[in-house]
Amino acid sequence: MENSHYKYVGKRIPRIDGPEKVTGELKYMTDYHFENMVWGKVLRSSFPYARIKHIDISKAKEFPGVIAVLTHKDIPGFNGFGIVVPDQPVLASDVVRCTGDAVALVAAETLEIAEHALSLIHVDYEPLSPVTDADFAMTDSAPLLHEGGNIHSHVTIKNGDTEKAFAEADIILENTFYSPRQMHAFIETEGGWGVVEPDGMLTIRCPGQYAYRDRLQIARALALNPARIRVVSNPIGGAFGGKDEITVQIYLALLALHTGGRPVKIHLNREESVIAGIKRHPFKVQMKTAAKSDGTVIANQVRAVADTGAYASLGGAVIALAIEHCCGPYKVPNVDLEGFCVYTNNGISGAFRGFGVNQVCAAIETHMDMLAEKLDLDPIELRKKNVYQKGDTSSIGHVLKTSVGTLQTLETAENCELWKNRNLHKQNITEPWKKRGIGIATSFHAVGMGIGLPDYGAATLELMPDGTFKVGVGCEDIGGGNSTVYAQVAAELLNCDIKNISVVQGDTAETIDSGTVTASRSTYTGGKAIAAAAPNMIRLLTEAAAEFKNVLPENVLIGENEMYVLEEDNEHIVSYRDIYHYLYEKHRPVKVEGHYMLPKEKEEIKGSGGAPHHLYGYLTHVVLVEVDTLTGETDVLRVVSIPDAGKVLNPQGLEGQAEGGAVMGIGYTLYEDVLMEAGYHKTTNFTNYILPTIRETPFIETIPVESAEETGPFGAKGIGEVVMIPIIAAITNAIYDAAGIRIQHLPATPERIFTALKEKQTTTPREIRNE
Amino acid sequence: MENSHYKYVGKRIPRIDGPEKVTGELKYMTDYHFENMVWGKVLRSSFPYARIKHIDISKAKEFPGVIAVLTHKDIPGFNGFGIVVPDQPVLASDVVRCTGDAVALVAAETLEIAEHALSLIHVDYEPLSPVTDADFAMTDSAPLLHEGGNIHSHVTIKNGDTEKAFAEADIILENTFYSPRQMHAFIETEGGWGVVEPDGMLTIRCPGQYAYRDRLQIARALALNPARIRVVSNPIGGAFGGKDEITVQIYLALLALHTGGRPVKIHLNREESVIAGIKRHPFKVQMKTAAKSDGTVIANQVRAVADTGAYASLGGAVIALAIEHCCGPYKVPNVDLEGFCVYTNNGISGAFRGFGVNQVCAAIETHMDMLAEKLDLDPIELRKKNVYQKGDTSSIGHVLKTSVGTLQTLETAENCELWKNRNLHKQNITEPWKKRGIGIATSFHAVGMGIGLPDYGAATLELMPDGTFKVGVGCEDIGGGNSTVYAQVAAELLNCDIKNISVVQGDTAETIDSGTVTASRSTYTGGKAIAAAAPNMIRLLTEAAAEFKNVLPENVLIGENEMYVLEEDNEHIVSYRDIYHYLYEKHRPVKVEGHYMLPKEKEEIKGSGGAPHHLYGYLTHVVLVEVDTLTGETDVLRVVSIPDAGKVLNPQGLEGQAEGGAVMGIGYTLYEDVLMEAGYHKTTNFTNYILPTIRETPFIETIPVESAEETGPFGAKGIGEVVMIPIIAAITNAIYDAAGIRIQHLPATPERIFTALKEKQTTTPREIRNE
Repeated sequence: MENSHYKYVGKRIPRIDGPEKVTGELKYMTDYHFENMVWGKVLRSSFPYARIKHIDISKAKEFPGVIAVLTHKDIPGFNGFGIVVPDQPVLASDVVRCTGDAVALVAAETLEIAEHALSLIHVDYEPLSPVTDADFAMTDSAPLLHEGGNIHSHVTIKNGDTEKAFAEADIILENTFYSPRQMHAFIETEGGWGVVEPDGMLTIRCPGQYAYRDRLQIARALALNPARIRVVSNPIGGAFGGKDEITVQIYLALLALHTGGRPVKIHLNREESVIAGIKRHPFKVQMKTAAKSDGTVIANQVRAVADTGAYASLGGAVIALAIEHCCGPYKVPNVDLEGFCVYTNNGISGAFRGFGVNQVCAAIETHMDMLAEKLDLDPIELRKKNVYQKGDTSSIGHVLKTSVGTLQTLETAENCELWKNRNLHKQNITEPWKKRGIGIATSFHAVGMGIGLPDYGAATLELMPDGTFKVGVGCEDIGGGNSTVYAQVAAELLNCDIKNISVVQGDTAETIDSGTVTASRSTYTGGKAIAAAAPNMIRLLTEAAAEFKNVLPENVLIGENEMYVLEEDNEHIVSYRDIYHYLYEKHRPVKVEGHYMLPKEKEEIKGSGGAPHHLYGYLTHVVLVEVDTLTGETDVLRVVSIPDAGKVLNPQGLEGQAEGGAVMGIGYTLYEDVLMEAGYHKTTNFTNYILPTIRETPFIETIPVESAEETGPFGAKGIGEVVMIPIIAAITNAIYDAAGIRIQHLPATPERIFTALKEKQTTTPREIRNE
Repeated sequence: MENSHYKYVGKRIPRIDGPEKVTGELKYMTDYHFENMVWGKVLRSSFPYARIKHIDISKAKEFPGVIAVLTHKDIPGFNGFGIVVPDQPVLASDVVRCTGDAVALVAAETLEIAEHALSLIHVDYEPLSPVTDADFAMTDSAPLLHEGGNIHSHVTIKNGDTEKAFAEADIILENTFYSPRQMHAFIETEGGWGVVEPDGMLTIRCPGQYAYRDRLQIARALALNPARIRVVSNPIGGAFGGKDEITVQIYLALLALHTGGRPVKIHLNREESVIAGIKRHPFKVQMKTAAKSDGTVIANQVRAVADTGAYASLGGAVIALAIEHCCGPYKVPNVDLEGFCVYTNNGISGAFRGFGVNQVCAAIETHMDMLAEKLDLDPIELRKKNVYQKGDTSSIGHVLKTSVGTLQTLETAENCELWKNRNLHKQNITEPWKKRGIGIATSFHAVGMGIGLPDYGAATLELMPDGTFKVGVGCEDIGGGNSTVYAQVAAELLNCDIKNISVVQGDTAETIDSGTVTASRSTYTGGKAIAAAAPNMIRLLTEAAAEFKNVLPENVLIGENEMYVLEEDNEHIVSYRDIYHYLYEKHRPVKVEGHYMLPKEKEEIKGSGGAPHHLYGYLTHVVLVEVDTLTGETDVLRVVSIPDAGKVLNPQGLEGQAEGGAVMGIGYTLYEDVLMEAGYHKTTNFTNYILPTIRETPFIETIPVESAEETGPFGAKGIGEVVMIPIIAAITNAIYDAAGIRIQHLPATPERIFTALKEKQTTTPREIRNE
């Protein structure tokens, strides 16, 4: 896995941000406190759906220690935000659509005073009957939650003739799959601080995934010149998509205008974070799949409904990505796919690692497992028969022009120890009522934004007074470790020690706009931008050294951490520090830029909302589970993760992503769901939201197949999302292998497994005996 | 009018951009030509409304000398633009909605080859029946031109009880007014040039009204990092709102990506400019006004329909401003106002000096004139009875907190020579069939953007190596002369010679974002931003001089064009040139910023789309006309323009605006209209679009009343738009005074006047005799 040609790229380089994070030395934005700091609090709606008749803030304003009480009337600009459609009010004025809706803001001397002041604000509501079911929301009887109707977006892809294919099929599977409302569960809840600096600059320090876009959203709400706003969005205590949309940035900005220059801090507690923060979209996926008796899948029909809750956020893009990926990485010639993103009063859903692909890949990979069983084929063989390769046409009808590693991941799965010895592993049970099973699934995930969306990277390289280099990339490090990769790429290309590289990210004052950290794109995009900047820096160093020593540039060579200047057979060394001071004296620039545009497909598939993508990452998971048939509890005992991320830039980083993704996938499949009733959150903290801990974390083995992607930095693609996707169906397929039950309603909680086992015993005794 | 306290402010300073403009030395963007320049051309739609079935560019691509042929498939990003709603495709893909729609782009070695290549592009259209009437567009039978329906926006303002007021009225007037599709008729048609610089920066040099916003619109279409785009939007050969929206910037950008680094130029000829460029919205205004017999206006009911053509552009804001202003600067307690902005296939309408206010003020000022006549009151007395003053509540229900000069303008009108001697002037006719009449009207116009829109100014002041100062303001000079005002304010506040001030505007690389040049805001906003920057520059100069001479800052005084340093009773002079070099040696900044936020009203009037504004400019016009009753021709013989622009910063600049606005108003009232038939432009050049020339320009007297506005720079407000508004009704009122006919369908062409005179003679002989 390590590549000997390079000094840093492909090497197991420890994370450059590791020491200060594990020692606790690093201050996150929510860790700051100042003597003169003011506390901000947000008054949230009391109802999931209600008309606001009146807001009385007079008592709150009078309370001693209260500095400001703000409502929608205090918004100088546009009262709305939202990455695609600004349909979410900053502060509700006439209606609230979910219990997370903000109605008022308070700033006070202490957190306690701020909390008390919230209770003194009287909002006169007229409660309305909430819409809590996405299917109902689409009917004519449902009240309209937004002017344009309850269907926020509708995407379709059709290819071939599904009706004909279903008529000609030897086998047809038709099932409905339900998926949960997953919580991002970052350790650092939403928060940050803002201040109007003495020079009038409004500075917002708040973890986020795209400082430049946050700045524009703040500017719109405040009707303020973006040039007067600095957003610092890095470091981040976890994000996973949950900090892609605006969290508290605009609240901080509004309050900061009313504190007389004192910094104001907001930090949501876990309950408020759960209620107001975005979640993964719960999906209902109806899928009908047809195959010939040799295992060739000939048709797939899908209808997916995503509950986006009260506001769109990125819901439209989520359903588009789901429909693009819902046939898996297979050649299915006849497809009829449609997706709906629907408003309800169930909180708010938005961006989350996987972005709609998780929900649909669980469905197609269950169908692949069912097909293999019914046709008595090996599940890997069946998939190998159907996967596309580079040059093939995908199910959505485009020709794959970039690297496709699915086949290699399946071949690697076939040959891994867990799969080869699967019968041995299954027999090795600890108690007679425990059953073991092995499951496999394969999936893919687009890298980069879809057609029609900006997709660019930009980086700066700056020579510092001490002769080191500062790499600047707008993209934040949301925990995936891109900062280390950026340092590796810079050190490799500048031929210098990685210790001489520092990285700055996520700060509109320090970096240039490099797009958002999402869509598994930051390694690819930022890496390419640094690679574009490096030759500019080498040119700058070479020319400066040549001038400094008064020789021709061709007599200058770049060495390790210094320049060599040849002069009449003598070799002089010019240090980077010398070059810096030479340039500084002459008022010459010491900073260069590198820019990169991601390649795109040319033709958008009509109605698809952005498909196809230029590039995809692929991954196969093999898992071993043990089901306790007395309690319904499932343990994942082993995971093999076989990613095709293109060339691996840092094996340790890739393993970190693969392991983190697998654990998140285990939680999604077995435990995690934010339950709601009548528009209220019933799950509001980690006390009843069950996350996998280290106890539930099995041995996870990562075996990358490296299908070099020629457009990527050193051949790399992206991997941040697909690492959590196939494991979902791999686990449910393994549960079936172990206990003979198909769980189509996630999470596969002990209750659901127990109930399914009971039903199987009572309703289908013959089938059990047949097994 | 001149103020002696100041050296530059309030003085008759000649335009700093005058000499290079009148000598022709200045190069406009469309004047540039380079050896390696490539010509771009735009293929426009053949139909006002059609489906595109296929576009075949193969023949055009093969033609020798053709460098690139681009269609919607070549747009890397979002295929749409539009300031508020991006509903206009950059290049049409499936449907065209007006004959100005761009379908393909060509770049070629010569203009002739590019034009020929357009004819080689084959577009297979399926023509559809165009919607050419805004009233019809609103019915259910009309085809939907856009997904959201044909009503782009609907605004309403209600106050009091109009029904009751109409029941109690002594006199009710009810009339319908039609207004024309005016052309901006700038001398420099839309054009510019773009190039990808050797360092990868995409530079677009194209006259525009907001370089920073143009940059964002280009970036969205190209999916390009805005940091990689430089937009230079100044100088401009006339704009008047017509270059507020994107013109050819995105076409230039797309083509520049395909010319291998060669610059590409597009310059629309007049016909293409007429067909593709925006126009003033034609309005149908139904107005019903009620008064008591003493002349007190007690109710006004208005329904205004604006034809925005194929795309919204700023149509939503135009109708909102129209409804905000449609009762004039009067206290009308009961109002019921609504406006519709409607899509049709009649070209595209958008921003234009006056922004919807022209069309409605013509209506209310005609009603005021009718009321005065019916009640036998003096028209000025009637208006004085109804105007609001500072502290009063306006017809739309807000309390005026800023300066209101309407009453003073009316009092000045009453005392001006033309009005006082009106009977003498009217008698002084040259031929017996010519009739003279005097008319008066008063109007107002908001300064700055409405509630919910960003409204900020920003300026930089930079000390230059030669000791002069460079003022940078993002706001372009679209001809109104703000550059001179900026120089005046800077010279005044820096206590230096105005010759030492240079001004740079409209360049994303050289200036910071200062908002758009629109809404009569640039003097106010830019002036305040410079005023905010000046103390920062004085502090910088003072501290540097103190350090340089090693004294305390309190011993440094700013002189005229230099600093005085007191040292033990000696006074040393430190030149700005010395300060520059001292700071430069120390790598210290020589540039400061100033920022300003326009004040806003707090409470938006529900449904109004942004009303009320914080600030308005006011103006009364008195005109003398002569109507030739044989031919129907009308000459405007004299104009008195009485603006309340707050304090006048430059009398010569104000007179320029007042005179230019009056002539534009004369053209609008008497001559100008772009006629369309079935979606096609029948008026396409100045051969059949009649503009007033110097022959039609009367003696125009400007008598400002200076109601100092305390929030403005040196007491100034804005005046760029209201200068052309009251004159419209003043002329039609004067025509009535002369010939006894009311023209409610503008322009008041000889045919319309002649027909009206004929109808009056034949159909209402008794009324004529009664006069």
